[in-house]
Amino acid sequence: MEDGARKPKQDAANLDMIVTPWEVKGVIDYDRLIKDFGTQPIDEAILSRMKNLAGGLHFMLRRGFFFSHRDFDLILERCEKGAPWALYTGRGPSGQTTLGHVSPWIFTKYLQDVFNIDLYFQLTDDEKFLYQRELSLQDVEKLTYENALDVLAIGFDPKKTHLISDIRMSRDMRELSLEVAKRVTFSTVRAVFGFTNETNIGMIYHPAVQAAPCFLPSRIAKMDVPTLIPCAIDQDPYWRIARDVAPRMGYHKPSGVYCKFFPGLGEGGKMSSSEPETAIYTTDDPNVARRKVMNAYTGGRPTIEEQRRLGANPDVCTVFWSLYFLFEPDDEKIQDLRESCKAGEILCGECKTNLAEKVVTFLEEHQKRREQAKKIVESTFI
Amino acid sequence: MEDGARKPKQDAANLDMIVTPWEVKGVIDYDRLIKDFGTQPIDEAILSRMKNLAGGLHFMLRRGFFFSHRDFDLILERCEKGAPWALYTGRGPSGQTTLGHVSPWIFTKYLQDVFNIDLYFQLTDDEKFLYQRELSLQDVEKLTYENALDVLAIGFDPKKTHLISDIRMSRDMRELSLEVAKRVTFSTVRAVFGFTNETNIGMIYHPAVQAAPCFLPSRIAKMDVPTLIPCAIDQDPYWRIARDVAPRMGYHKPSGVYCKFFPGLGEGGKMSSSEPETAIYTTDDPNVARRKVMNAYTGGRPTIEEQRRLGANPDVCTVFWSLYFLFEPDDEKIQDLRESCKAGEILCGECKTNLAEKVVTFLEEHQKRREQAKKIVESTFI
Repeated sequence: MEDGARKPKQDAANLDMIVTPWEVKGVIDYDRLIKDFGTQPIDEAILSRMKNLAGGLHFMLRRGFFFSHRDFDLILERCEKGAPWALYTGRGPSGQTTLGHVSPWIFTKYLQDVFNIDLYFQLTDDEKFLYQRELSLQDVEKLTYENALDVLAIGFDPKKTHLISDIRMSRDMRELSLEVAKRVTFSTVRAVFGFTNETNIGMIYHPAVQAAPCFLPSRIAKMDVPTLIPCAIDQDPYWRIARDVAPRMGYHKPSGVYCKFFPGLGEGGKMSSSEPETAIYTTDDPNVARRKVMNAYTGGRPTIEEQRRLGANPDVCTVFWSLYFLFEPDDEKIQDLRESCKAGEILCGECKTNLAEKVVTFLEEHQKRREQAKKIVESTFI
Repeated sequence: MEDGARKPKQDAANLDMIVTPWEVKGVIDYDRLIKDFGTQPIDEAILSRMKNLAGGLHFMLRRGFFFSHRDFDLILERCEKGAPWALYTGRGPSGQTTLGHVSPWIFTKYLQDVFNIDLYFQLTDDEKFLYQRELSLQDVEKLTYENALDVLAIGFDPKKTHLISDIRMSRDMRELSLEVAKRVTFSTVRAVFGFTNETNIGMIYHPAVQAAPCFLPSRIAKMDVPTLIPCAIDQDPYWRIARDVAPRMGYHKPSGVYCKFFPGLGEGGKMSSSEPETAIYTTDDPNVARRKVMNAYTGGRPTIEEQRRLGANPDVCTVFWSLYFLFEPDDEKIQDLRESCKAGEILCGECKTNLAEKVVTFLEEHQKRREQAKKIVESTFI
């Protein structure tokens, strides 16, 4: 296994931080995560190469929403040379899609648009079925369909986008997952994921299924097509397994580009589909979403007078971070907002109304595209 | 888990006997196996019900080749009532088919003919790939095809026979194996199969794949269709897992009817596809098979004179057992042979020639049917 390929441990200094593929809790220390997981920070050299290639930098890179990587430079090198590569990302269909899920997909679509390449999108319905006692196969299959509509509504090129359902599993996926599974022992998945003797045997096999799409583009094309995986950093343990077996299977190690956790609308914590009051779902009625935004936790003061006098704190404000990471790509506007907030020139109500309008516009558009996606969704699965 | 659902242990009295799905070694004590595995002996009551239903008893039942069972009586009860049930058996395609594999299939065909029911036949190509380091996916896929030809050459009704390749895995099989896997922990498969931390995660998942066909007939028919599994007793650990989860999945526990290990042509031990000199393959040139029979280990005496005087020992003779368990269904003839042997009236050469003729006739017929099976084999897979 690679350096850093170990389960993040809790210690006295960080008792509150838990980051696994199934649980993200506490105040997240991203520098610490980079160290624990053994990934690389996205540095100036990477940003500069990306800027040259893309003719500019996406605001999610400029603002450090995507903050860490593994071998992203090898993918940039392929871009510079015109060598093929592919995008791979996914979603565990445990509920309706939230803005937290959507945010890295928007960056993924940007990469697809800029580099004009194929995207393999895995819906890990097997994992959700196996992990969540209360979910039936029928439940997760329904959610796979619902989530797939959201993926397509993002606007990915349907001709270059290939959805994977782990339950429907294609022959290629089955063979690749067997090739991975043959090379991974219980010791390894226990060390990487913290599995125990009580873990069910489906969960134990699943890392092979999640690793398989890393190699699918090469298998389909019958040539080297390494993958870049844009996703939240909690998924990195899976890519350690994939990177570990890749050379033994005759493939390139997959590269990753990792984002932070998109904030929920409550105090602290990521947007979670299991907390409906502080999460905005793509299927929310726009008026419901507006109400959630208007109830969001902000960095405001107890009274208007105090806020005018002392200013507010954008750094702890879920409205500010939603704009910063997703809804306000204009750097000048976001900088102005930040300063007005700190100076007490703008009040929370105004800021919430601003975000709510953007959210409502997004949802109206998204829901229209979501309806249209129903016509093509089945043919997009491989 | 059921009583007796534990890994058979070695003790001082039976140091030589090892019986697992991957290894059969030493002198087999079948009474001990019944006790260790927690199965039932096939008793007079079972034989009498079977005789009434089938209008006679197959010689493999009369002679105790099939000697043990789990809930075979429940299947007989369904036969008596005219309630539906199905046959399930299989083969791990690690090499060409031998007479050892064929012998329980002949009994399975008899059951299919007598009761006119469907057979689900699983080729566990995933397991063989995962277990045997040197086998590639391509190798096992080729062997799956080769073994499937042998299955069909036995003469199963192609309209009522459904081949399953674990690698090609259908949607129904995938979903059933996930349903099983969700209900089985690493602790359980460790206890039942002796898995360790170094076992690969594919092998750990495989028991769910082998359990799945127990429930496939019910799933396909959307009604209760319990299964009866005719197989060698070393496969029982898999059915313990399946029986354990069945009620929690809303299905009947599968029943089993278990045979002994078919003897090889060498001194002691079962016929093994990895020991070519003492195994007869269905693909052997008849003249090669004849030579193997003529070299078989017998219960003969060092000299003709001694044998004429003292008689020979059929109980240790691989030629006698091959006739007894497979090639001489006529009870009178086999009894005569046994007596002539013990009395020294017949010599080993004559007996070998007799078996060789039967083997050659079987192979010639089988190889013809095997050729014909090529036309239908692909359409028999589900």
